[in-house]
Amino acid sequence: MNYKILGKILGKIMVLEGVLMVAPLIISLIYKEPFLNTLAFIVPIVLLVGIGFLLQLLKPRRNSFYQKEGFALTALAWVVMALFGAIPFMINREIPRFEDAFFEMVSGFTTTGASVVNDIAALSHSTLFWRSFSHWIGGMGILVFVLIFIPESNEGSAMHLLRAESPGPQVGKIVSKMKVTTRILYLIYLGLTVLLVIILMLDKPIAGYENDQLFISLLTAFGSAGTGGFGVIPGSIAMYNPFSQYVIAIFLLLFGLNFSLYYLLLIGKVKDMLRSEELRGYFSIAVIAVLVVFASLLARFEAYPQNYTTEEMFRHSLFQVASIMTTTGYTTTDFNLWPTAATAVMVALMVFGAMAGSTAGGIKHSRIIISVKGIYINIRKLINPRYVPKMKFEGKTLEEKTVNDVFAFVTLYFLIMIAVTTLLSMDPINGTVATVVSDGGTYSQNHGLLSNLTATISCLSNIGPGLEAVGPYLSFSGFSAFSKLLLSFTMLAGRLEILPVMILFNAKTWKRF
Amino acid sequence: MNYKILGKILGKIMVLEGVLMVAPLIISLIYKEPFLNTLAFIVPIVLLVGIGFLLQLLKPRRNSFYQKEGFALTALAWVVMALFGAIPFMINREIPRFEDAFFEMVSGFTTTGASVVNDIAALSHSTLFWRSFSHWIGGMGILVFVLIFIPESNEGSAMHLLRAESPGPQVGKIVSKMKVTTRILYLIYLGLTVLLVIILMLDKPIAGYENDQLFISLLTAFGSAGTGGFGVIPGSIAMYNPFSQYVIAIFLLLFGLNFSLYYLLLIGKVKDMLRSEELRGYFSIAVIAVLVVFASLLARFEAYPQNYTTEEMFRHSLFQVASIMTTTGYTTTDFNLWPTAATAVMVALMVFGAMAGSTAGGIKHSRIIISVKGIYINIRKLINPRYVPKMKFEGKTLEEKTVNDVFAFVTLYFLIMIAVTTLLSMDPINGTVATVVSDGGTYSQNHGLLSNLTATISCLSNIGPGLEAVGPYLSFSGFSAFSKLLLSFTMLAGRLEILPVMILFNAKTWKRF
Repeated sequence: MNYKILGKILGKIMVLEGVLMVAPLIISLIYKEPFLNTLAFIVPIVLLVGIGFLLQLLKPRRNSFYQKEGFALTALAWVVMALFGAIPFMINREIPRFEDAFFEMVSGFTTTGASVVNDIAALSHSTLFWRSFSHWIGGMGILVFVLIFIPESNEGSAMHLLRAESPGPQVGKIVSKMKVTTRILYLIYLGLTVLLVIILMLDKPIAGYENDQLFISLLTAFGSAGTGGFGVIPGSIAMYNPFSQYVIAIFLLLFGLNFSLYYLLLIGKVKDMLRSEELRGYFSIAVIAVLVVFASLLARFEAYPQNYTTEEMFRHSLFQVASIMTTTGYTTTDFNLWPTAATAVMVALMVFGAMAGSTAGGIKHSRIIISVKGIYINIRKLINPRYVPKMKFEGKTLEEKTVNDVFAFVTLYFLIMIAVTTLLSMDPINGTVATVVSDGGTYSQNHGLLSNLTATISCLSNIGPGLEAVGPYLSFSGFSAFSKLLLSFTMLAGRLEILPVMILFNAKTWKRF
Repeated sequence: MNYKILGKILGKIMVLEGVLMVAPLIISLIYKEPFLNTLAFIVPIVLLVGIGFLLQLLKPRRNSFYQKEGFALTALAWVVMALFGAIPFMINREIPRFEDAFFEMVSGFTTTGASVVNDIAALSHSTLFWRSFSHWIGGMGILVFVLIFIPESNEGSAMHLLRAESPGPQVGKIVSKMKVTTRILYLIYLGLTVLLVIILMLDKPIAGYENDQLFISLLTAFGSAGTGGFGVIPGSIAMYNPFSQYVIAIFLLLFGLNFSLYYLLLIGKVKDMLRSEELRGYFSIAVIAVLVVFASLLARFEAYPQNYTTEEMFRHSLFQVASIMTTTGYTTTDFNLWPTAATAVMVALMVFGAMAGSTAGGIKHSRIIISVKGIYINIRKLINPRYVPKMKFEGKTLEEKTVNDVFAFVTLYFLIMIAVTTLLSMDPINGTVATVVSDGGTYSQNHGLLSNLTATISCLSNIGPGLEAVGPYLSFSGFSAFSKLLLSFTMLAGRLEILPVMILFNAKTWKRF
């Protein structure tokens, strides 16, 4: 293990986090918040920059590193980022307990958006900003940022990092130079974010928040771009105007696309883009899901408390499908109260996630498509042992190794799902803690199996809300400290697609072989 | 496709089913039931024997068949058996509707034990006998029976059948001759069943059923041996004496063992038997599960309606763990009302099932162990690309192909689970039908997501009860005809381990290649 190079890169990442934290610091000054709120950011900035610079004094004998080091570094960097990122919440006492602050920050960086805060109206502007900004940072990957600083000669090592951090079964370089790839991806990401802010500013302000339109639009765009989902005002997106809700829904679907498709679009290869099987699968599933949810609301919603108009039913169907399948977790209504057909579709979308190479979590559509094709190949082989599979995916022959890796990933996803759900259910403290809901009342719900299962899926797929006790308008505050830490690592495992986190905890990683 | 040999073997199976049906016919005569009940068995016996003999007149050009034919035949035979087996229920009007009778019979042969009957006290002795007898027949496999009739020279073809019908990742012949293997397995199965009947007869009769002790003991033993779970008296096993409950729990665990272990025991290779990794995993999981459930009942059960003594808590914990992990589904208490820790353990056990090579369903412990080892191999390979896996399972080197097949199986299991759950949830009729429960009241529950999910897992793993609307003391009668047929095929897919059923429905199977 090349500890020195790991330390050096970790140092760069820490300095970078310190620099990024200047943004919420400025917000706290603009909004003339109490000095404690400003100090809350000064302390971690000083620590991050100081320790970061010291780490960069390390002189590694060689500048390159291997795959396993890339994986371990990635997982380690995310944990370190979340630890330091959680300091402001503990200093300004808005999320005082360590397990809560760490959970919130892991949820931010992993773009999950699950929160332990019961009343976000009580949070300061700087805290709200840092939460949502962490979605935007985490969305495209922390380490991809760092790639920009790695010397040109070190493309191989950089590739190891990209592979560890990028969602999806395979990492393709768009153009030959890694850095160029990274810069193009970031420009697309930045461009779409800015575009969303501008369009949201065109709408009339949300009633009661007339002075905060830019702030709210900016933070909403951060959460959308990163497919994160932390709310900015109480009720998530429920109080936004219908125009904004439609706009956000469409942008969410756009952020769920594989970003390399945008590159194809930019260089005019529209046909190549539209030929993407995953893109077709993604939009087919989106359309079917919206139709099923809409139909189920039309058919049976009169039995439920809300009284929707037909337009509202369509809008909520579109919004929730877009939000859940892109693993964002923004909500315009309490889908926990929907008929079973709609909630079942929601949970299935949570498991599947969006496209590989997007900012979203979940198993990813490409893996689902590859699984189905792989199963078909297995059946054909049983029918005819002489059958030679000539299956293709995205125009390339589907390698047996790719199929097997996908099967292994899906198996691991479900085994982790069962293990975490069972552990959460065995924790006797969960659900016994009274939860203060945003209308001021208290609420305590024994966490049933469906709560624990959907909390697990929600964290593993980086979504945010689940059903029942972790429904859209309830928080994760009812879980014990142990369960919050367990769910934090579940979110990290989900964001980094499981293996880096398991490698971090494998003793063999830290031994010479 | 060698249709003639398929038809010929199918004919043999049909004659066999006709012969087996003489048993419930005799029961209807012994209990002096109305003539309609006797006729209910005479009609299908005549049809089965008649059509079966006609089919055996077929003169196939060759007597051997291939893997795909073996798979297709297996799936087809099970469907045909269930179709004819359902006729008595429709004639004697005890389960008059086709979809109900078919569901009940598929549930019987697949040893699931899920029932659409709300009040089993209203069923005649002959119907009760045929339901439970179908568990015993289905437990060891219908086709394995037929192997006894296949000519000696045809070992290869017979192996295809055994492979299609036997649960588990690999089929091993215990002794070189297939028929000898089959006979030994049947003798063990028969021996254990007889032993259970004798021990149950030693207990004092169940209060209120003093005249029916032999009948009840016999049927309970059928359901235990096949790990089926159809109840014989209202309340499943709840009214049995504690001694019988302990005895049944222990026998259930014994029927969840890989039967080849008994062979090792018989020939005195006790050490080899105890070295089995799957056996160790199976008992470890059983012990842990009993302890967790028992602890959760001790800790929190005062909040629930029942008032158990400590002994009862232990007995119910042991019984339900044994019943659910062996995918039997007998119940001594309504575990749906248990704390979340206990229900979560129940659902995890439902997914895992028991040992390969037993009469139980589920993913099987050997596959879980192989999955975990396979994931470990993948992680080691990422840490060190030069790593050459030397992983062993049951003393043999774990082949890459075995691992990949297991990953594919687990992936398919979970994809089917999601697909069936979503389809059940989309069916607007489910749960709108009022269910008459055994105490005479009516009961209608909208099928929530957890009901549909556990109904699916319960059918896919061949268990019987689930949670909420399909809880231990409720039936599957609230599902629509479409959903009942969907669940019937889910049970078949689970019993035959999915692939044969998919091959049956694949058009390519029926074309020449």
